[in-house]
Amino acid sequence: MHNVASNSEQNLFLIAEIPGFSPQIGRLVSMLNYVRSTTLSAVESLGVDELDYLHDAQSNSIGSLLLHIAAAEAGYQAATFHGRGLDEDEKRTWGAALELGDRARREIRGHELDYYVRTLGHVRENTLVELRQRADEWLDDSTPLSSGQRVNNYFKWFHVVGHEINHRGQIRWLRARLLRGVGGE
Amino acid sequence: MHNVASNSEQNLFLIAEIPGFSPQIGRLVSMLNYVRSTTLSAVESLGVDELDYLHDAQSNSIGSLLLHIAAAEAGYQAATFHGRGLDEDEKRTWGAALELGDRARREIRGHELDYYVRTLGHVRENTLVELRQRADEWLDDSTPLSSGQRVNNYFKWFHVVGHEINHRGQIRWLRARLLRGVGGE
Repeated sequence: MHNVASNSEQNLFLIAEIPGFSPQIGRLVSMLNYVRSTTLSAVESLGVDELDYLHDAQSNSIGSLLLHIAAAEAGYQAATFHGRGLDEDEKRTWGAALELGDRARREIRGHELDYYVRTLGHVRENTLVELRQRADEWLDDSTPLSSGQRVNNYFKWFHVVGHEINHRGQIRWLRARLLRGVGGE
Repeated sequence: MHNVASNSEQNLFLIAEIPGFSPQIGRLVSMLNYVRSTTLSAVESLGVDELDYLHDAQSNSIGSLLLHIAAAEAGYQAATFHGRGLDEDEKRTWGAALELGDRARREIRGHELDYYVRTLGHVRENTLVELRQRADEWLDDSTPLSSGQRVNNYFKWFHVVGHEINHRGQIRWLRARLLRGVGGE
């Protein structure tokens, strides 16, 4: 949990400025940190079998969803910090996690929780290094969609936050069925 | 969808200022609006049977989850705009939706989609009326938890956003199983 620990003085229940970040970026980082703490709580102490559990033929495992969360963040790093898509190396690293479905069911399994937590942490560390170097105005920089609508960096990173919460909601649902009576949805 | 329509000029892919709201509150409203649009997409054209569908004995229906989203927002309105908990009337209105589980499975059923969409819209309208009257500094106002940690209004409303996304993630999961092949998770 070093991503959270690196802001260990931060009260996770404040969306507020954080030393080392520009004011609005600090608020965004508050959101990233808080949501990550809830994701880690949602998977606390799960074993390999539980991380690999498939609820039905269409399901993604909790392990796959964790890696999917990290992969999406890596994708938005490339897009927003470097103005590009994932390169070939990154596609090899993240392909199964981005695709989910059959490929993820085949390729993402047998890992301990620590593997997923470390992967999430490494990606997040990189996000924080980059965000420290940016001013609030960067949040308003935007690129066009094919529809012509513009998407700004604040939206993209809010989307990373929301994407994690969306899948955390599914992780909680799966966990509640793995461990009846433990945890809510 | 009048909550979104009322900001119909707003590009939903920008987290940005919105006329009529103070700058940072406008960004928060951008998040609320965008997430609501995705929730409404996730339930588009569902019929009563689908809204009442129970995946297993422990499941909440999609209808219950929609009302739960509205109920949580009503709870945070009371807390942050009026500094109080829900009153007796509000508890009668929202009790089953807040509790979910057995009570919601008994009490929340048989409604058309329009009922849920209108309920979500009425609650949201109230949120926007109140937020229009507030300055950015209000986001930093905080109250203590029993642990002594402080929680500010920005966190509370970010939590409303995250709560909706969390349950939208579950709605998508349920919908994908209701209508095989339609929609992702």
